[in-house]
Formats: sequence, C-alpha cells, structure tokens
Amino acid sequence: MSTETTPLSSTPRTTLRRHRERGETDRAALYEVLDPGLICHLGVVADGDPVVLPTAYGRDGDTLYLHGSSANGAFLAADGNRVCVTVTHLDGLVAARSVFSHSVNYRSAVIFGTAAIVTDEDERWQALRLITDHLIPGRWAAARQPTTKEMAATAVLSLPLTEASVKVRTGMPKDEPADLDLTIWAGVLPVAVTFGEPLADPLVRDEIPLPAHIRDRVS
Amino acid sequence: MSTETTPLSSTPRTTLRRHRERGETDRAALYEVLDPGLICHLGVVADGDPVVLPTAYGRDGDTLYLHGSSANGAFLAADGNRVCVTVTHLDGLVAARSVFSHSVNYRSAVIFGTAAIVTDEDERWQALRLITDHLIPGRWAAARQPTTKEMAATAVLSLPLTEASVKVRTGMPKDEPADLDLTIWAGVLPVAVTFGEPLADPLVRDEIPLPAHIRDRVS
Repeated sequence: MSTETTPLSSTPRTTLRRHRERGETDRAALYEVLDPGLICHLGVVADGDPVVLPTAYGRDGDTLYLHGSSANGAFLAADGNRVCVTVTHLDGLVAARSVFSHSVNYRSAVIFGTAAIVTDEDERWQALRLITDHLIPGRWAAARQPTTKEMAATAVLSLPLTEASVKVRTGMPKDEPADLDLTIWAGVLPVAVTFGEPLADPLVRDEIPLPAHIRDRVS
Repeated sequence: MSTETTPLSSTPRTTLRRHRERGETDRAALYEVLDPGLICHLGVVADGDPVVLPTAYGRDGDTLYLHGSSANGAFLAADGNRVCVTVTHLDGLVAARSVFSHSVNYRSAVIFGTAAIVTDEDERWQALRLITDHLIPGRWAAARQPTTKEMAATAVLSLPLTEASVKVRTGMPKDEPADLDLTIWAGVLPVAVTFGEPLADPLVRDEIPLPAHIRDRVS
C-alpha cells in the first residue's frame, strides 16, 4: 500500500457537514479504506436515473479500476460521465442510551469523478490483473490467462482518485450527559467480514493441493 | 418477515442480461435479501451527479425507510426524485481455473423508485423504530425515546418496493469444460459478516447487565 499523503482536492461536494471530526482528506486515509475492501458500489446515471451496482475493483496508484460485462448497459453508461464509487466497511453497531445517539462504526470512502472505459489493451490487461489480485492476491498468476474473446467480453472502467470523502467512526456511543445516568446498557456490537475455510470445487483433481495464496487470503 | 409472494413489476431496467438464471423477481426473494442486511447504499442524483451514500434502513411491508441527518443535502435531494437503493451480501470469492470465470457469490437487491421525505410525525416515529430495530431487534423499546428536537434533526425517506432486481449467485466456479483438466485449484472462499462479543461502554454502571436483545443479536 502506498504511504503517500498528498491531500485530495476538497470540493463542496466532499465538505463534511454534520460530523466534521469524521472527515479525513489525505490519500493515505483513502487507501486505507480502499485497499482492504472487497466490493464497491458504483453509482451512475443511466437514462436520467441513478443506478447503484455492486462490483469488484482494484487500485493502481491514484487510479481506481472497476470491471463489468461489456453487455452491461448501466456499467457502460459510466463512460465519459460523472460517477460515484463508495466503499464501506461496517465495523460495529453502536447502541446508545438514547435512540437518537445510535450509530454505526464504519470506514467509508465516497469517490467522485468522471469515469472512462479503458480501451488500451495493455492497460485493460493490467487493470484486470489488479482487480483479480485485489480480491485474492496472487490469483492472477495462478489462473489461466484471458483469451482475446474473454477480454472482449469484459469492460474496464477507470476513475481518477482526485475527489473523495473519507469518513471514519470508531468507539463508544456519544450520549448526552443527561442520559448517562439512565439504567440502559450501552456499547458497541463489533461487526467484521470474515473468511471461512476454503471449499474446493468437487471437480478439482485430487493431487491439486490448496495453494498458498488461497490459504494466505483466508488466514 | 412477510411471506407474500406477489411478483414485483418487471421493467426494462430490471431485466437481467448476462446471467438470466440469477434473476428472481418475487417479493419473498426481495425480502430475503433486505431483511438480514445491515446497511444499504442509496444512490441519488444531486446537482446532476450521482452520489452513493451508505445508510441504515428498515422495512414496513412494501415500504423501505431510510434515515439521515436533516442537514444532509444529498439525502434531502432524494425527495420526490428517482433513487436507487442497493443491498448486497457478499457470500464468497469464487476462484475459477480461468481468470475470466472468477466471480463472487452474493445476494443483491437493486431497488428503483421515487423517494419521498416522510412528513407525517406518526409515520416518521414508526419508521425510525423500524430502522433501529432492523439493526438491533428490540433496541427501540430499551432505549430513551426521541425528543421533539431530536426528531426535527432526523430526516426519513420512504421508497415503495415496487421495482427491484434481485440477483443471487451461489456455488462453485463455472469453468469452461476445456479448463477442467488444468492443474489449477478452484473453489470458493466463503465470506460472512459476523458479530463479535459486545463491548460495554466503560461509562455503563456496573449493575446494568447485558440485555437479552443484545445477546440475541450477536449469537
């Protein structure tokens, strides 16, 4: 992961309103949200209406790559247009003494920008490698490489990481002082995304062991 | 959870293209995705551009409720406008023999409709109860109820559940037959959202035990 900390551009859209203390604007904070994430939600405007699609992604420096089917109209609608990509980690449910102070612990990145369908074949190849290895590091090199036909069936979208809002909430509920004397339990219910034991495809030949990159991913 | 199975309306937007076998259009399938979810991603168009916000939600029959700060412009921009709400459960990473056949196991609901800021105070109260109890069933009754001022600081959005696309992928990789003889491990890396042990706020008085609704939520 890069340790660069150049500030992201701050725009009115990414100005935080209600919880200014949750705003972070440096790149390191953005990468810290993006890099451990598994999927993002891509928002595009298709035929005038918003569409939010869950999809995989990968990062190459300050470029985010997403991929989709080249038959997916909503995905292709992003080309040359403003999009919003959001990555959210839910870390906990925050049970406060008052209903109003209930919250969630989370880390989120909301990225805005103009997306472009990547046409350069080398960049497409590199982007697909990044997306594949983002989900399972080392997987690309271990798998059968794409054919020309498979490459043609896949669309790759790029988005510059120049305008983003990173928000993080951690810790205990922030109840009103007057509520602290209430006889109500308060605290945090931790939430995490966890991997289970890998399940081998029954068609995998017996002599093929579980590879290290799979073991590393789930441990 | 309702067991109603009235079909959702099918529109061009919700017609599935690439993977028709993953499409489900009945309400029961929609509820099965929404009800165990923790957060959704709300897509709105604000100042002409898409914005995707993670937020909590609750369901009352065929109405979805979301809440946000009454100072959140992007959230308020949804009032009277088309929105898209997506709930995604990531269930596994699917490692195929070919890069191209890599996939993820997931359950997703993509809901389209015209949202409205709820103004009726009884409906707002009921919606906030549903959202609170969606995350932690039984929490609303256990917590200090909202004041008039707190209610004023909270905006509630309603969205009818009439147009939605539910997609589910389960199971093993679907590699090309010719790839099955490759000496490449294939299978599924299960992914799940799990709760950890509840962490009591250090300010909670010693005599207050962990309530049953918290224990039930995490067990």
